[in-house]
Amino acid sequence: MDTKRVTFGEVATAVNEAGGDIIAVDMIRTSKQGTVRDVTIQFNVDAHERIHLLLQGMNGIHVLHSSDRTFLDHLGGKIQVLPKMPIKNRDDLSRIYTPGVARVCMAIHDDPSKVYTLTAKRNLVAVITDGSAVLGLGDIGPKAAIPVMEGKSALFKQFADVDAFPICLQTKDVEEIVNTVQLISPMFGGINLEDISAPRCFEIERKLEEKLDIPVFHDDQHGTAVVMLAGLYNSLKLVHKSLPSAKIVVCGVGAAGSACIDLLLAAGSRQVIAVDRYGALLPDTSYDDPNWRRIAAMTNPEKRGGALTDVIAGADVFIGVSGPGVLTVNDIERMAPDPIVFAMANPEPEIEPEIAEPAVKVLATGRSDYPNQINNVLCFPGMFRGVLDCRASRITMEMKLAAAQAIASIVTDEERNEQYIIPSIFNEKVVQQVRASVIASAIQTGVAKRIPPDFA
Amino acid sequence: MDTKRVTFGEVATAVNEAGGDIIAVDMIRTSKQGTVRDVTIQFNVDAHERIHLLLQGMNGIHVLHSSDRTFLDHLGGKIQVLPKMPIKNRDDLSRIYTPGVARVCMAIHDDPSKVYTLTAKRNLVAVITDGSAVLGLGDIGPKAAIPVMEGKSALFKQFADVDAFPICLQTKDVEEIVNTVQLISPMFGGINLEDISAPRCFEIERKLEEKLDIPVFHDDQHGTAVVMLAGLYNSLKLVHKSLPSAKIVVCGVGAAGSACIDLLLAAGSRQVIAVDRYGALLPDTSYDDPNWRRIAAMTNPEKRGGALTDVIAGADVFIGVSGPGVLTVNDIERMAPDPIVFAMANPEPEIEPEIAEPAVKVLATGRSDYPNQINNVLCFPGMFRGVLDCRASRITMEMKLAAAQAIASIVTDEERNEQYIIPSIFNEKVVQQVRASVIASAIQTGVAKRIPPDFA
Repeated sequence: MDTKRVTFGEVATAVNEAGGDIIAVDMIRTSKQGTVRDVTIQFNVDAHERIHLLLQGMNGIHVLHSSDRTFLDHLGGKIQVLPKMPIKNRDDLSRIYTPGVARVCMAIHDDPSKVYTLTAKRNLVAVITDGSAVLGLGDIGPKAAIPVMEGKSALFKQFADVDAFPICLQTKDVEEIVNTVQLISPMFGGINLEDISAPRCFEIERKLEEKLDIPVFHDDQHGTAVVMLAGLYNSLKLVHKSLPSAKIVVCGVGAAGSACIDLLLAAGSRQVIAVDRYGALLPDTSYDDPNWRRIAAMTNPEKRGGALTDVIAGADVFIGVSGPGVLTVNDIERMAPDPIVFAMANPEPEIEPEIAEPAVKVLATGRSDYPNQINNVLCFPGMFRGVLDCRASRITMEMKLAAAQAIASIVTDEERNEQYIIPSIFNEKVVQQVRASVIASAIQTGVAKRIPPDFA
Repeated sequence: MDTKRVTFGEVATAVNEAGGDIIAVDMIRTSKQGTVRDVTIQFNVDAHERIHLLLQGMNGIHVLHSSDRTFLDHLGGKIQVLPKMPIKNRDDLSRIYTPGVARVCMAIHDDPSKVYTLTAKRNLVAVITDGSAVLGLGDIGPKAAIPVMEGKSALFKQFADVDAFPICLQTKDVEEIVNTVQLISPMFGGINLEDISAPRCFEIERKLEEKLDIPVFHDDQHGTAVVMLAGLYNSLKLVHKSLPSAKIVVCGVGAAGSACIDLLLAAGSRQVIAVDRYGALLPDTSYDDPNWRRIAAMTNPEKRGGALTDVIAGADVFIGVSGPGVLTVNDIERMAPDPIVFAMANPEPEIEPEIAEPAVKVLATGRSDYPNQINNVLCFPGMFRGVLDCRASRITMEMKLAAAQAIASIVTDEERNEQYIIPSIFNEKVVQQVRASVIASAIQTGVAKRIPPDFA
């Protein structure tokens, strides 16, 4: 910083105007030519490069180096594989590896069910992606998807003590994905499919469920649907409406939207209208997409046609899993009294929360910076904790409904209000309750291969 | 224990005679009917069931429960997947997962080489098996192989801070294995093939080396060969013989034997005779097995035919990677003066060490209960530490030779003797030296894609 040409005050003002807060300044050295300072700036997610370029472009300023805390946290990755016990000497080695391990291998060979007691399988989930639909970023490929899958694995361990390992596949071919997952499945107790684009995700999940004896869960579909339903249960209580009678418009019939519709119908909804880019899906209409045909046949009993802005009139609930800007205040104003709007498109909701809020009774989004975040982290840790603990062979619709009810139940009648229809992901009761409800449902529906001690 | 019918002294004697040592006794309760004791018994690997049955069969004894420390150590598996940093609050979450992670994904998408800095790939090895040749147990399948692969992963982390994850494949088809490993490779920085039977292991390794830009190492082949050569370097120094002039008989032309021969030839051996169950392999002879043809063409320059017992006459070195009992004292007595015998078959060597020892100058085995253990743990941790640190695209013959020399060099001239030709696996210099030599060789042979800071 050339102090003859620029003052620190000018720098601070520029940083502020660019959306950053200077939270610490260290003087590194000073001379007649100028000063070198180490400046720590807090800013929103995407401001790093903008602030770097802004400062670099200022007269009298030279940016020596800038680092970014998010990137620092990712250096070398976010997960590690650790032995459960140290190998300190030859005696340890002889039990953990040869020759002792041979007896353990033969015990499994003689009784394959022992793989669940004598290996890590009983607590291990594969987080599988092909990188084709990563966050809102689209098809960025398996390598660029790794940070998300590592993050997911870290969340699994942190929230539910589930060991999860990323498998990022260099193929988008349905048969290759199914075959690969089947071939690597002996080590895993469960399969979490992640960020795989529709419609391939439907076929992949269905085929894997047929072929494997361990549970398969496409989180983008079912995790979203479960948490949405949990929030909807509590929202409907607030406005004294019932699920069967509520008119629900689901906007976006991709992976998440289809799963939301399936779960709503399973939960007892009778008035669901599915809307995609060509308008409301109609029964009796033949669509190219087999998933649209399936959804169309089950929904829209009153056969209402038209665009979203047409069918939204009179609706009690809007569930958005589409894209930014598809919903207007005018649409909301034509909904039934006490409108419930779940604008879950990420990172940009279907309507800006500030614009929607005055017009709605309840607003939920996928974002963490507004109340009522519909976040999958509320579901998948407890769901897998449950299915692993009871060795469920698959995840049934009943188990998903049980998980949604468990999440909803954490918010008590006294606590429930427009700003609090869904618990915080850091509420420790969430995993416990989801786990317990999922296990109870798995036992009831006959898919549990083990009764956990606390259920005996 | 019915104290009217049996005394504790009788129990202790019986346990001792069965090969166990009572190391602790706790009295749990005592009454007129008898006493209940918790007895801790130390014994050799396979005595647990024998001692259990022996005690159960004794008059006046009822075994309430017995547990086995090796099995206890395996309960729930031996590895876990942990986040490198805790996720304590929403701020942590926003950097490690959405929305912050999106920028990290896009950085890799824009520059794929960043996958090495921003993910766990740079320190991650897949331990791949099909369970077809596990230890000496044979084809026990992918599930029964898991305990070995988990043990291997634990050793990788413990000895060299390498994150390793088991992939146990439900197929023995070469194409399926190659294809699967290729499809899951984006996440991994290296591939360790393990316990895959010959001759498929050769083809799998070769095809993977062609297809992948990360190093592939079949430990049963090359790990064994590297450590064998390290021990042989030091053995030959003891008897003042040189590798080029030494007559070496390699018994067993499977995975390990072939790799030993390849490495010996690369190291300068000129007098290698390969022997398998039908006798010495002869050049000019056509064998069905393409690997035998390849080995035969490179070895036995004097074209000596016959069984092991014929060609062993006058040999300086016997390298056994076959099975128990194939070598006799009579064979050793007809070797050249100062015979060197590496009887590496596991768990039963080619000749019993007690029988061989008086007749040989140097004896090495694969076992931990005799001196001079040829143990792969001396090689693979340092080898992968090295190739990961320099991002070697493959593992060249020069790198294997460098690793063998590094291991041999840990035993100093002063220390070297018949009982100490190879360092202990717990010698911390081993990983450091193997790593350094492998990196130097990788840089020299042009396969290193990164120069580690300590080599700059």
